[in-house]
Amino acid sequence: MAFDDELRKSQEQAEQTVERYLPEIKASPGRLAETMRYSVLAGGKRVRPILLLQSYAMYGGCDDTLAGPFAAAIEMIHTSSLIHDDLPDIDNDDWRRGRKTTHAVYGPALGILSGDALLNYAYETAMKALDEPNDAGPQKSSDEHDDTDLQTGSDKYRERTARAASALRILMQKTGMYGMLGGQSLDVENEKNNVLSIDRDTLDFIYLHKTAALIEAPLMIGAVLAGAPETDVRTLEQVGRRAGLAFQIRDDVLDATETTEEIGKPAGSDEKNGKTTYVTLFGADGAAAEAERLTEEASAMMDSLPAAGGFLREYLIRLASRRK
Amino acid sequence: MAFDDELRKSQEQAEQTVERYLPEIKASPGRLAETMRYSVLAGGKRVRPILLLQSYAMYGGCDDTLAGPFAAAIEMIHTSSLIHDDLPDIDNDDWRRGRKTTHAVYGPALGILSGDALLNYAYETAMKALDEPNDAGPQKSSDEHDDTDLQTGSDKYRERTARAASALRILMQKTGMYGMLGGQSLDVENEKNNVLSIDRDTLDFIYLHKTAALIEAPLMIGAVLAGAPETDVRTLEQVGRRAGLAFQIRDDVLDATETTEEIGKPAGSDEKNGKTTYVTLFGADGAAAEAERLTEEASAMMDSLPAAGGFLREYLIRLASRRK
Repeated sequence: MAFDDELRKSQEQAEQTVERYLPEIKASPGRLAETMRYSVLAGGKRVRPILLLQSYAMYGGCDDTLAGPFAAAIEMIHTSSLIHDDLPDIDNDDWRRGRKTTHAVYGPALGILSGDALLNYAYETAMKALDEPNDAGPQKSSDEHDDTDLQTGSDKYRERTARAASALRILMQKTGMYGMLGGQSLDVENEKNNVLSIDRDTLDFIYLHKTAALIEAPLMIGAVLAGAPETDVRTLEQVGRRAGLAFQIRDDVLDATETTEEIGKPAGSDEKNGKTTYVTLFGADGAAAEAERLTEEASAMMDSLPAAGGFLREYLIRLASRRK
Repeated sequence: MAFDDELRKSQEQAEQTVERYLPEIKASPGRLAETMRYSVLAGGKRVRPILLLQSYAMYGGCDDTLAGPFAAAIEMIHTSSLIHDDLPDIDNDDWRRGRKTTHAVYGPALGILSGDALLNYAYETAMKALDEPNDAGPQKSSDEHDDTDLQTGSDKYRERTARAASALRILMQKTGMYGMLGGQSLDVENEKNNVLSIDRDTLDFIYLHKTAALIEAPLMIGAVLAGAPETDVRTLEQVGRRAGLAFQIRDDVLDATETTEEIGKPAGSDEKNGKTTYVTLFGADGAAAEAERLTEEASAMMDSLPAAGGFLREYLIRLASRRK
């Protein structure tokens, strides 16, 4: 299949998966469910669910009830972090992707709780992967009633549970204080303390955590759920690290060189805020070159993966050179 | 053992458990870990970990590595909700338990992210209960190297995992949009929209979710982890529902009748804010009587539990008639 067709197909699949696991609008007596749907359905490239589902497929995974909950969960976590980032007390952004942000529509108080609820609901959703298919709980196994060997059924359940638990651990760790939230909080701390001039190591710490952690996670989780070898999971973590960093550097470049209309959010905001970015450290061209170098490194690392990374490889390369 | 001795002992146990699972202050390069420790170590009665550990003990549970992570996790979740409640955009409280609140010390931006990180870390902590003791993962079982029957080892792992997964589901569900966060958000929504006069059903919905859900959860989780019968888990849910509601009504009564010094936070705030409470609906005496009635109902339901609820029963009764 041509890359563009495959991209369209995987985007549709990701979109459907995200929508399938969202709570119904009537799920809460107030507007909480509405706020959760509003932010998740505000659009976006669905990068993280695509990475997860494609990594899963690369290792032959074909069980929607295992990968689907995690794909939806990681998009909810990403969205939850955007809601909180946009709050008046953090970045104070009223617009994102050409739409009003959650707090701008529903107020900051509900914005805070909506982000909380979405983070929590992400984990509730991921837990669905621990259910046995057909809703047969561990103690209600129907193994005895069909011709499946009991030991095989038990081993299968055990294997599925072990994979889902391992994926859940990765998701939590890459999201929390040792991952995304650790990076965000150092970023915010520096900003609020007017520590604007930071060195490259600190900037890398922030980018690797606030952005790369949630690129590493879906690549790793897809592989873990499909039973990929541990060495491949580690390789994918390193691929995600470099691709995630390149992705964030590209953001710096776009903020400095493109217009507000083109990127769908206020351009030039980094310079206006006096923030240290890859562009302030190395110039727009230097930053673009570094993003390219990292992408090439990530790409080369994928040589050892099935079909040399296939679709995923091309997808990551395009992400790091995107124009919006 | 006399009740007061048992209470002291269980409080110490809860305190130690909570502290054991907190991240080290050096765990993050910025002040994130410090903010998380600050709020959790700000004191408090440790009601939820006590309920969890005592419910676990009531069913003969004696594995600290299974119940401990959940006991610490539920206190982190509770604390995370307090941090966010106190934020300027929600209740705007600078003081709690005689200490400055998290945002008052570290600023609202870090307050938001600290609450997020604590919620996430609660789940990271609870996941530790899914580890096999002695760090033997599911695929690295040492069963073959000792005289334990392989099938027994496998069954044991399976049973432990099933209980921990079930406890994790309860924790997530009682915390999220169908539990605590659902109640908080309706409460906040009404307040921000100046819907101050609400009917009893709406008030009950808010109280049952924002408060009772996190009283039901520890009672249920302790029992589930110890392998209690499903009927007992359901009974404990109903006990928690009534005790939790009584607990919150008691809060209304204390707010209306006690002084700021006695309860350690600003008294009379409900009346000042014009909020509907059990006291505005039924007067201080009527509210106190309703709390008592609910507590008696909860207490009677515990007749069917081991030792008729033992320590737990007395503990819940005292909570609902506490003076601060």
